[in-house]
Amino acid sequence: AHVPFFAERYSEAEMIKRSQEFYKLLNKRRSVRFLSDEPVPREVIDNVIRTAGTSPSGAHTEPWTFVVVQDSDLKHKIREIVEEEEEINYKKRMGERWVNDLKRLRTNWIKEYLDIAPYLILIFKQVYGRLPNGKKKTHYYNEISVSIACGILLAALQVC
Amino acid sequence: AHVPFFAERYSEAEMIKRSQEFYKLLNKRRSVRFLSDEPVPREVIDNVIRTAGTSPSGAHTEPWTFVVVQDSDLKHKIREIVEEEEEINYKKRMGERWVNDLKRLRTNWIKEYLDIAPYLILIFKQVYGRLPNGKKKTHYYNEISVSIACGILLAALQVC
Ligand SMILES: Cc1cc2nc3c(=O)[nH]c(=O)nc-3n(C[C@H](O)[C@H](O)[C@H](O)COP(=O)(O)O)c2cc1C
Ligand SMILES: Cc1cc2nc3c(=O)[nH]c(=O)nc-3n(C[C@H](O)[C@H](O)[C@H](O)COP(=O)(O)O)c2cc1C
Repeated sequence: AHVPFFAERYSEAEMIKRSQEFYKLLNKRRSVRFLSDEPVPREVIDNVIRTAGTSPSGAHTEPWTFVVVQDSDLKHKIREIVEEEEEINYKKRMGERWVNDLKRLRTNWIKEYLDIAPYLILIFKQVYGRLPNGKKKTHYYNEISVSIACGILLAALQVC
Repeated sequence: AHVPFFAERYSEAEMIKRSQEFYKLLNKRRSVRFLSDEPVPREVIDNVIRTAGTSPSGAHTEPWTFVVVQDSDLKHKIREIVEEEEEINYKKRMGERWVNDLKRLRTNWIKEYLDIAPYLILIFKQVYGRLPNGKKKTHYYNEISVSIACGILLAALQVC
């Protein structure tokens, strides 16, 4: 069914004000590596993921999967897998130059926050989908589309 | 200089409400191909791009360039280049399968809106940067980082 397009209209002054306030809010976002374990209502996480799911995508393929992990044991298993891979990244895969570039960020492969955060949101890209006949269906621009959805997810988190 | 991290705190009820409202707002975004030529204050566009520039990026490389085009002749030249490339995409590069997948979207290579929109925002990814000594410096994850910035740009536009 056709859904007519509707957009809220604001005066020029309001548009300027809204764009300023949103800038100020988003400019406070930071990639923190020390997190609080304070609980957050699950409904907030669900709404944030719903928001990410409104993202545009190449040929409307919506090539993303969001998985929310709340269970402590599962979070810990994920931490172990991530740290193991990241240690190989830092020590072998990235190479001296990249590791050097990262030095001033003082990041490493230890990720305590994966145990501490009340939720982990795992984000997967669907490189292909399935047609009704079971054949693979290429998802054009899947990485770009999922990354745009991540940007919208970050904006939604910052709003809450 | 160290800038302490500060985050606004909301009650659980407020967080739920804010996440709902932001979802409702973003869910109204659409990839429209028929645009209004109504003027928009340049300040709004600048703030929206500033907001996109707050995006996270691999190793803090900020590998994006945003170019705002307002001049009619230049917009028209861009339209011609884009349409020429897109016609080749549709007729040769994308292949029958992809073109078929796009049929239900009824898109094609004609992009009148590139003349009509008051502004075009061109987005470039910087595949590499330059070191002080002039040597190339790889920008890790440049496409992912720029795409995340695009997601934040879309969110900022939708807010205004
Ligand atoms: C990576 C990417 C590439 C896209 N390419 C085109 C395109 O070439 N032509 C077009 O008309 N729309 C393009 N779109 C828009 C999608 O068709 C649109 O996002 C999708 O149909 C969902 O509609 P919506 O954005 O209104 O939610 C693209 C979107 C993304 C994210
Ligand atoms: C594609 C991408 C990859 C990233 N990889 C890592 C990473 O492996 N480890 C890490 O601690 N931070 C990582 N970051 C976070 C960046 O270091 C961070 O965004 C950047 O330093 C800017 O800081 P800000 O997000 O607080 O603005 C990544 C960010 C992006 C967009």
